[in-house]
Amino acid sequence: MHFPLLSPQMNEEFERRLTRIRLAMQRTGTDAVLLASTVNFFYLAGGIWRGYFYVPAAGSPRLFLIASPKEAEGIETPIRKPEQIPALLAELGYPVAVKVGLEFDDLYYSEVERLRKLFPEAEITNASAILREARMIKTPLEIQFMKEDGLHQSAVYSRIGKVYREDMTDVEFQTEIERLLRLEGCLGFLRVAGSRMEINMGSLIAGPNADEPTPYDFSMGGTGSDPSLPVGASGMIIKPGMAVMVDMNGGFNGYQTDMTRCWTLGDVPEIAVKAHECSRAILRDLETFSRPGVEIGEMYRRAVRIAEEWGLSSFFMGHRHKVSFIGHGVGIELNEQPVVMERNKMLLQENMTIALEPKFVIPEVGALGCENTYAVRADGLENLTTYKENLQQL
Amino acid sequence: MHFPLLSPQMNEEFERRLTRIRLAMQRTGTDAVLLASTVNFFYLAGGIWRGYFYVPAAGSPRLFLIASPKEAEGIETPIRKPEQIPALLAELGYPVAVKVGLEFDDLYYSEVERLRKLFPEAEITNASAILREARMIKTPLEIQFMKEDGLHQSAVYSRIGKVYREDMTDVEFQTEIERLLRLEGCLGFLRVAGSRMEINMGSLIAGPNADEPTPYDFSMGGTGSDPSLPVGASGMIIKPGMAVMVDMNGGFNGYQTDMTRCWTLGDVPEIAVKAHECSRAILRDLETFSRPGVEIGEMYRRAVRIAEEWGLSSFFMGHRHKVSFIGHGVGIELNEQPVVMERNKMLLQENMTIALEPKFVIPEVGALGCENTYAVRADGLENLTTYKENLQQL
Repeated sequence: MHFPLLSPQMNEEFERRLTRIRLAMQRTGTDAVLLASTVNFFYLAGGIWRGYFYVPAAGSPRLFLIASPKEAEGIETPIRKPEQIPALLAELGYPVAVKVGLEFDDLYYSEVERLRKLFPEAEITNASAILREARMIKTPLEIQFMKEDGLHQSAVYSRIGKVYREDMTDVEFQTEIERLLRLEGCLGFLRVAGSRMEINMGSLIAGPNADEPTPYDFSMGGTGSDPSLPVGASGMIIKPGMAVMVDMNGGFNGYQTDMTRCWTLGDVPEIAVKAHECSRAILRDLETFSRPGVEIGEMYRRAVRIAEEWGLSSFFMGHRHKVSFIGHGVGIELNEQPVVMERNKMLLQENMTIALEPKFVIPEVGALGCENTYAVRADGLENLTTYKENLQQL
Repeated sequence: MHFPLLSPQMNEEFERRLTRIRLAMQRTGTDAVLLASTVNFFYLAGGIWRGYFYVPAAGSPRLFLIASPKEAEGIETPIRKPEQIPALLAELGYPVAVKVGLEFDDLYYSEVERLRKLFPEAEITNASAILREARMIKTPLEIQFMKEDGLHQSAVYSRIGKVYREDMTDVEFQTEIERLLRLEGCLGFLRVAGSRMEINMGSLIAGPNADEPTPYDFSMGGTGSDPSLPVGASGMIIKPGMAVMVDMNGGFNGYQTDMTRCWTLGDVPEIAVKAHECSRAILRDLETFSRPGVEIGEMYRRAVRIAEEWGLSSFFMGHRHKVSFIGHGVGIELNEQPVVMERNKMLLQENMTIALEPKFVIPEVGALGCENTYAVRADGLENLTTYKENLQQL
């Protein structure tokens, strides 16, 4: 059990992340944030422990830990319960914070209510929004982690064709890919923002199952194999003429890449091949168009326009059920900021990491298209998920 | 996509669960609850959809669904956003609720705050507590689901010895068991209550890794293979003289059983064998002692006493780090009510389902002991996880 970012060697990386948080705090006039969620705790400490990370706008941040590890001495104060924090802050000489951020979108209601009582005089704001903004722009080290994810994920995707067997169900095929991922070092558990997002190791969708809606906010649907988890593979046998879309877990180190590739069993109709090529054309277009300063909504509109030009609008981003985004930030969580949707007026910034997934659902055939995770660079997008994109035969 | 419990054939089951919720509502004087979390939505609808389930103390409950499925006609009103709910309730003739329950422990702070605004005049109470109480006692159908889980999980556990290979790491061994589980129909994703609980498909702990603490509130620790998910298998090679504890995912149908068994590689010290036998002795004792009306804290104290009598106290429920419970409710979530801990004065009730896990950590050797999931019956505990308990050689 370690806090890698709190080791002396990582001091610079820690300061970088701290600075990103403080920039967002300043913009919102927040005096201090108290972080408790696993994702935000991990962002700042590089590890997970039971406790709270107090970050004032100025001065040293401080860890309040319930089970104290030895690794974080100097920055750390042991506690039994969060109610001890206010007195300890006063004792340690921290000024009283007037405006305190708590994680409205990462902690349950009862947890925030408990922490709110620690600051009875303070105005309470949303630290989740602050951390979302901070985490949106990655440090070089974070992008390095994601490059490693992309390499591992690509290595696994290159072996996918080898584990297919005739008459497999979609669940069986997915299971063999899950195994390849885990043996490659994938951690399995996928962090997704939102209390109503649930998935196991990502999704594999074959044939008509692609056109089945899901109650979750994932780009593609699928009935799942049980009403208790209605998303993804359904348990049906993969048959000739079907496309199989693989969009599975790229998390190996606390960060993740999001990559989708497609396979077909036997021949598929020309329109499916065309849809797959259109997805690649959209990616090529966006790779050079998307530079720092570009309005994110414009990326969405370009993608929609290209799908239109190819005559494929009715299949774009779903058929019976459509989603309203073609991409999303990715990092510690699968779905970070920014969301690439029509009304997003935010400008693209260097070192954002974004998964773009222009996908098509062709009724009966399945889902087609590719997804890559990119780092935004000065001259365009750098692809972190470089496995070949062509439609492959199983 | 279905709501199995809203089909006419399931009317009786739906009424049973509704009655359980209403009993808990009456006890707390709650006029209505508005449910939105996946676990509570699933409890009452038997499926998951994007929307809200409004349950008044009297009269018909109503589903407000954002993407409306055809299956729930008659009970269902389509909406675009929750803000439409109050006007629709009035239109449908529902009386104004004075005390409304929202899920404080299952929804994020921002979600509850949004829903709270729908009832500006009402007193808001914790629907999570109401649902926890309702879900604590299972219906015959729920226990039937869990029996099926136990059969599947036992079938997989019977194959565990066959997938071990010499010089495997704990992660590799766990991966092969995950594959067996998934091929048997395990859904993979594990629902655990608490915003800071994270795990992939359960846990396999070998040798000295058993004595490593985790920040999560699971009974056993382990460093994990990466600082971003510090629990369970660490990536170390399993060596002769080690015990391997397998405590993995028993979820096949929206419910789950929790079962732990142990294997050894080569010979282990006598004290490890004794600890394993002591765990079984504790289970045998509790199986007959634990009847409706028994104080739950007394179960905990009996287990502690038996471990003492066997001279194994210092290893019981952990060694360097100890947990303060020996069991927990299980059902839709892995950790439901009641918690079997010293200070729990609640009385055992018929049709509770409880996992009992008297475990030991023997330094250097590993974790020993068994865990079973039981249904509480009039004459004692019925074991739902019947795979043989003896310490097996790999």
